[in-house]
Amino acid sequence: MTVLGLGLMGQALAGAFLADGRPTTVWNRSATKAEPLVARGATLAASARDAVAASPLVVVCVSNYEVVHELLDPLADVLAGRVLVNLTSGTSQQARETARWAERRGISYLDGVIIATPQGIGAADTLLFYSGPRPVFDRHEPTLRILGGTTTYLGADHALSSLYDMAILTIMWNVLNGFLHGAALVGTAHVPAAAFAPAARKGIATVADWLTGYADQIDSGRYPALDATIDTHVAAMDHLIHEAEFLGVDAELPRFVKVLAERAVTGGHGGDSYAAMIEQFRKTSGG
Amino acid sequence: MTVLGLGLMGQALAGAFLADGRPTTVWNRSATKAEPLVARGATLAASARDAVAASPLVVVCVSNYEVVHELLDPLADVLAGRVLVNLTSGTSQQARETARWAERRGISYLDGVIIATPQGIGAADTLLFYSGPRPVFDRHEPTLRILGGTTTYLGADHALSSLYDMAILTIMWNVLNGFLHGAALVGTAHVPAAAFAPAARKGIATVADWLTGYADQIDSGRYPALDATIDTHVAAMDHLIHEAEFLGVDAELPRFVKVLAERAVTGGHGGDSYAAMIEQFRKTSGG
Ligand SMILES: NC(=O)c1ccc[n+]([C@@H]2O[C@H](COP(=O)([O-])OP(=O)(O)OC[C@H]3O[C@@H](n4cnc5c(N)ncnc54)[C@H](OP(=O)(O)O)[C@@H]3O)[C@@H](O)[C@H]2O)c1
Ligand SMILES: NC(=O)c1ccc[n+]([C@@H]2O[C@H](COP(=O)([O-])OP(=O)(O)OC[C@H]3O[C@@H](n4cnc5c(N)ncnc54)[C@H](OP(=O)(O)O)[C@@H]3O)[C@@H](O)[C@H]2O)c1
Repeated sequence: MTVLGLGLMGQALAGAFLADGRPTTVWNRSATKAEPLVARGATLAASARDAVAASPLVVVCVSNYEVVHELLDPLADVLAGRVLVNLTSGTSQQARETARWAERRGISYLDGVIIATPQGIGAADTLLFYSGPRPVFDRHEPTLRILGGTTTYLGADHALSSLYDMAILTIMWNVLNGFLHGAALVGTAHVPAAAFAPAARKGIATVADWLTGYADQIDSGRYPALDATIDTHVAAMDHLIHEAEFLGVDAELPRFVKVLAERAVTGGHGGDSYAAMIEQFRKTSGG
Repeated sequence: MTVLGLGLMGQALAGAFLADGRPTTVWNRSATKAEPLVARGATLAASARDAVAASPLVVVCVSNYEVVHELLDPLADVLAGRVLVNLTSGTSQQARETARWAERRGISYLDGVIIATPQGIGAADTLLFYSGPRPVFDRHEPTLRILGGTTTYLGADHALSSLYDMAILTIMWNVLNGFLHGAALVGTAHVPAAAFAPAARKGIATVADWLTGYADQIDSGRYPALDATIDTHVAAMDHLIHEAEFLGVDAELPRFVKVLAERAVTGGHGGDSYAAMIEQFRKTSGG
């Protein structure tokens, strides 16, 4: 296969193919980045056009979609009839536009995202999401799985991989903020973050266990409060805000959390489970 | 043992002791709530005073600390020499004050919190945190473990259980908000929340795996960016905001997340790992 773009991630991708013994052609704007890969057996193409021409499967991983188009728009003729797998991060709109561009030119197109750092490429639990035509994914799944054992196909809509990428990112920042705020709270009693981390992980695992039940409520549009109501949550948020203020720890995060929950109460969901908060998030917030 | 307060939680606590075959004395302001427990073998005391007098170990679980004091202040004489385990939710300040109150009256005091709903009481993975004198906890640990298999002692400072309670709550709301926001994002492509939940759980588990490493950075006060810098995070947050705006999904949550991260950049942490955000949370936010 061919890998276009040998930044931190592209090097890891090409390295994983080489480690699996696959004949790998590489190309990068700055050719020097290919050297360690060539030393491991990669073929360095003289041009991006030659690199595309070398393989039926072309993986591209560059800074952004603007670079993807700058690089590939002039190569549409040689890409026609090949499979293009784009692992560059972007928006769902860019993924759909690139899919339309590819379709008009007879290029089989898969849009993918990597939920890992370059160090994680090739590991069994490394997560990659793909969207695009199922037959194309199925045909190349064994190859794509070399990059990460938890390679997951999401559906035909090319937007799906970017949407999942964004969804996992929003979860990531919120989990990290919760952990760091919690660490700051217990830190006031001189608890090291390392002592708090196992309890935090246990708490996170407990909450993760609720998600399937909440998801069913979201999909049914009915949010019976099987445990705490949003009203109860708001009362507890008040306690947390007072505690944070008393301890001199940031109270802005819990205040923001409470503003969101109070909006659900105003929307008539005070007696519902926390899952009803989805209706807040589905709405454009304006501003 | 004795259980004072037979609300939803108190009933579950007394029920777990009975299920374990322990002689259990109960009391509640509204005596009718004791009936199902009496049917299962509990002894209903005629007064809170009689209930305390019946056992060396007294568990109290009522609405809040004001009620704890209203109930127990007049009973200090009969509580003297006994162990009082307070599973009522409250602030760290209330826990410390109650500990001082108990100490002056010769009452051995443990402050505890329950990270579970009443349905979870008695299960192997149910989490309860305790703080107070270690010898008192050690002596009664087998009894306390009846209430939840993941009973954890935090330290002598009575504030610790409340602080951990608040810290787990702040994590809980942030994880749930992240999940719900993510579900709203993928929902724009008609992905059911139930289909998204497994990916969300996998994403959460991935982030949970980073916490120990971040905790070590927090404790050392040095935040080398082993993967992404906060600058990189801020750029990705911008993408998320634009994506949310484009999709008509709430952009207020990611905008808030970005405001926090930008503050870290302003504070000189743009080149550091996300763990450096702890310094934002340690500070009082004012306002
Ligand atoms: N690194 C991660 O942890 C990570 C994780 C998940 C996803 N990703 C995504 O993977 C993609 C690549 O990331 P990376 O970490 O490899 O970035 P990087 O190290 O900055 O590499 C950027 C790549 O894009 C190329 N490029 C930039 N502008 C170009 C142009 N005008 N023409 C041709 N090539 C150009 C660069 O070529 P030169 O070498 O010639 O500059 C280089 O190959 C991004 O979309 C990123 O969001 C990265
Ligand atoms: N339920 C949960 O999921 C959960 C989870 C974790 C922690 N907790 C904590 O556990 C504690 C109890 O919660 P709960 O769910 O059992 O609440 P609840 O069902 O509302 O019960 C409140 C209890 O407090 C008693 N009480 C209230 N005011 C009183 C007064 N002035 N004098 C004497 N007794 C009074 C009530 O007696 P009456 O029956 O006579 O009204 C009842 O026994 C709270 O601190 C709560 O935060 C609960």
